[in-house]
Amino acid sequence: MRFQSVKGTRDFYPDQMRLRNWITDAWRRVSVRNGFEEYDAPIFEYLDLLTIKSGQEIAEQLFSFSDRGGRHLAIRPEITPSLARMVNARIHSLPRPIKWFSVPRLCRAENPQRGRLREFFQWNIDILGSDDVLADAECIFVAADFLREIGLTPGDVCVRIGSRPLTVAVLTAAGVPPQAADAALAALDKRPRLPEEEFHKLAAEAGLTGEQIARVCEFQDCGDLERLEEAVGGLKGAPAHAAALRDLWGHLAAMGVVDYCCLDMRIVRGLAYYTGIVYEIFDRDQSLRAIAGGGRYDDLLGVLGGPKIGATGFGMGDVVLGILLEEKGKVPQAVRSQPLDFFVIDGQEGAFQQVQRVVGALRARGLTADFSYKRQPIGKQLREANRRGARAAVIVREDRVAVKDMATGDQNDLGLEDFLGRADRVLADLRSPTG
Amino acid sequence: MRFQSVKGTRDFYPDQMRLRNWITDAWRRVSVRNGFEEYDAPIFEYLDLLTIKSGQEIAEQLFSFSDRGGRHLAIRPEITPSLARMVNARIHSLPRPIKWFSVPRLCRAENPQRGRLREFFQWNIDILGSDDVLADAECIFVAADFLREIGLTPGDVCVRIGSRPLTVAVLTAAGVPPQAADAALAALDKRPRLPEEEFHKLAAEAGLTGEQIARVCEFQDCGDLERLEEAVGGLKGAPAHAAALRDLWGHLAAMGVVDYCCLDMRIVRGLAYYTGIVYEIFDRDQSLRAIAGGGRYDDLLGVLGGPKIGATGFGMGDVVLGILLEEKGKVPQAVRSQPLDFFVIDGQEGAFQQVQRVVGALRARGLTADFSYKRQPIGKQLREANRRGARAAVIVREDRVAVKDMATGDQNDLGLEDFLGRADRVLADLRSPTG
Repeated sequence: MRFQSVKGTRDFYPDQMRLRNWITDAWRRVSVRNGFEEYDAPIFEYLDLLTIKSGQEIAEQLFSFSDRGGRHLAIRPEITPSLARMVNARIHSLPRPIKWFSVPRLCRAENPQRGRLREFFQWNIDILGSDDVLADAECIFVAADFLREIGLTPGDVCVRIGSRPLTVAVLTAAGVPPQAADAALAALDKRPRLPEEEFHKLAAEAGLTGEQIARVCEFQDCGDLERLEEAVGGLKGAPAHAAALRDLWGHLAAMGVVDYCCLDMRIVRGLAYYTGIVYEIFDRDQSLRAIAGGGRYDDLLGVLGGPKIGATGFGMGDVVLGILLEEKGKVPQAVRSQPLDFFVIDGQEGAFQQVQRVVGALRARGLTADFSYKRQPIGKQLREANRRGARAAVIVREDRVAVKDMATGDQNDLGLEDFLGRADRVLADLRSPTG
Repeated sequence: MRFQSVKGTRDFYPDQMRLRNWITDAWRRVSVRNGFEEYDAPIFEYLDLLTIKSGQEIAEQLFSFSDRGGRHLAIRPEITPSLARMVNARIHSLPRPIKWFSVPRLCRAENPQRGRLREFFQWNIDILGSDDVLADAECIFVAADFLREIGLTPGDVCVRIGSRPLTVAVLTAAGVPPQAADAALAALDKRPRLPEEEFHKLAAEAGLTGEQIARVCEFQDCGDLERLEEAVGGLKGAPAHAAALRDLWGHLAAMGVVDYCCLDMRIVRGLAYYTGIVYEIFDRDQSLRAIAGGGRYDDLLGVLGGPKIGATGFGMGDVVLGILLEEKGKVPQAVRSQPLDFFVIDGQEGAFQQVQRVVGALRARGLTADFSYKRQPIGKQLREANRRGARAAVIVREDRVAVKDMATGDQNDLGLEDFLGRADRVLADLRSPTG
C-alpha cells in the first residue's frame, strides 16, 4: 500500500463506526434526558487560548500551525477552554445554571499507547454558574446514568472522588509553600500509576520532604468520610470542604447512584485548573487508564477574561471506554451489523423498473430499502437479501409482490399498490425480531 | 473580550447546534434508509494523500503542519482521498457495490465569504465497485430524497447534471489537445459564476481560441437531451456517454425524482479527478453557491495505489444549505428549542430529597427531567419549568405528586410510587402536543 493513516489515528470502517455511534448516541441521549443542551466549538483555536491555563502536559501535546495570515493556531486537545471562551462572550445573556454538553473530536500529539491515541472523541458535561455542590453531584449522576445505560454496573466501574482543596490544606499544614502546591499535586496525580519508589523520587523532585510525603500519603489513604473528617478537622479551611464532600454523598444517595461512587483522596487530577471536588472513573480492577475525569474549576472563566463563576464538569473519552465495553462483553449484537427493512427483487424479466419504483417509494416513506444492481436469478438476489440482513424480501411481478419474511421463510402475496400503501404495517406484522 | 474564535469558524451555541443536528440527523437518516453504511477517517492525514490528485484549488487551501517526528500532515479539506485509501486497504474483502456515507468535519484555509467558511460539515455519499450508471442514479436519488425530507421542493432546488467526457469530446473535436483539457475544464467550471467577458479572458489564458470557446459554449447551452444527442452524434466516444445520460434519466424517472433534476452541460466540476457524469445542486434562482456537487471518479483509487474501480458520489456542505433553509423558512419551530418532559418541584419544605429521588428515577427510565438548584417558592419554580419548555411540572409533597400539564394547566394528583411506576404513560396522556 502506498498510503497509510497516521499512527495513533483510527479509520472507522462501518463496523467501528457503528460502535462509535453506539457510544456517542448514548452520550447524547443521556445528556438530553438530564437537561443538558449540546454545543460545539471550532476544531482549531488561537494557540494562546489553549495554552494559557491548561497543564504543561497538554501544552506539549498540541498540533499547532499557522494560517496564511501568520496567526498561531492549534487543533484543540480539550474543549474546556473553548467552552469558557463561549460562555464568557455571552455571560450576561445566558440563564444560569448553564448545563451544556458536547462530544468533540480532540487531538493530542502524544505517543500512541493502549487506551491513548492521538485522535479521539470525548464526552463533556459541564455546569456553569453554580457554586452549589449539587452541581458537582449532578455531573457525577449524569456519568453514572450513562454507565448504567451502556450496561456497566457498580461491579464493573467506580467513580473515585477526591478533593483538591483538602489535599492542598494537608500540604499546607505539612509546610509545603503555596507556590510549590501545583508541582506537588502534579506528582501526587501520578502516584496511583507509579511504583512506590518512583513516586517518592518524583515527589522529592517536586520539592516535598520525606516527612511531607508520608503525611500527605497517610491522608490520601483515608478510606472513608469519618476518618477523613478526623484527619483534616483542625486544618485551616478544611472543615467546609469536608462538609461539601458529605453533602455530595447525600445528593448522590438521594439520586440513587451512590453505589457507583467511592471516596479516594489519591485523585487530584493533572490539569492545573481544578479548584474543588475532583473525580476519575476507573474499571474496578484498575487495569485500564481512567475512563473519565473531572471536577470543579471555578477560576477558569476569570483567567480567560470573564467574571469568577462557579464551574464543574467532566470529560469521558471513547478509547478506554471502548476497550472496557469490549472486554466486558457489553457490546450488543445489534451494533455488529446494520439491518435493512426490505430488499426488493425483480421476480421476472421486465420488472426492474417496478423494483426501482418500489424502492424509491419505500425510502421516501422512511423505510430502509435496497436492491441488487445486477439483474440475476431470484435465488441469487435472495442470498444478497440475506447477506444484507433484510427483514423481508419483496419479489415484484407485474402488479403484485410476494413479501418473504427472511427469518421464518413465510411468504405473503399482495397487490403492489396495496403493499406500498401499508408497507410499514406489513413490516410491523413480520414475526421476525427487529435487528 | 480577550479571546475570540478564529475568523471563518463557527461557535455552535445550543441554538446553532440544534440546527446543525437537525441537518446532520436528516443526512444520516436518509443515508441509512437508502442502504448506505457510515464510515469516518482521521481529521488529519499525510499531506501527500491530500495533494496527489485533488485540484490545485484544494491543495492551496490546506492547513498543514508537522508532528514531532517531522512528518508532513494536514487537516482534511475533503474526505474522498481518505475514502479511497480505506477502500484500497480492504479492496479484496469488501463486498461490492460498496455503499458508504460520512458526515466529516472539513477545514479549508480560504477567505471566508457568504456560504464559504474555513470549517464546515459535509455529507458524503459514495458508491464504489460499480461502473453502472445505476450507481450515479442512486446517488442523485439519495440527494433528492434528502432535499424532499428536509422540506425543499423541486421549486426550491435543482440537481444540474452534466457530463465531463462529453465536454472533453467536444473540446477534442474543436482541436484542444488532451494535455490542455484539464485547464480548459477548470476555466469552464467558473463560467456560470463569471461575466461573459471575464470568462473569455480566463478561457483564453487556459489556451482556448475564440472559435473553440464559441464551440464549447454552444454545446454547453444545449437545453435538452435530444439537442445534445444531435450536437455530439458524430464525435468519437460521445454516443456512449450520451446514452448513459439517457439511461440516467430513465432511472431517475423510475425512482420518482426526475422533477428535481435538469440537464446542464455547463456543470463540469472543479476537481481534477472526475471522469463521467457530474452534477451540482443549486437553489432555483442560483442566487447562492452550489449546495452540493459530485460525479463519477473512476481513476482515483488507481492513482492512490489500488485497482481501477468504478466510483461515484457527491458532497453536500452544511453552510449554503443552512442559509437556504433559513431563507426559505424551512426550519421547523421544534428545532428552535429543546423540550423537557418533566420539571420536578419541591412542594413543601423538606421535600427536596424526594425531588432528587424522582428526578433520578425519571432519567434512569429514559425520560427527560430537570429541577431547580434553588429552594424557592412553587410559583418561581413553575416559571422556570415554563422557561425550560417542560411538558409537565411534578410538584412533590411527601408521598404524593401533583402533575401539572404546562400547556393546559390541568392538574392530576397521584401517589408518588404510582407516578414513578407509569411516568411514561402519564406523559403520553397529557393533552399538550409534543415539542
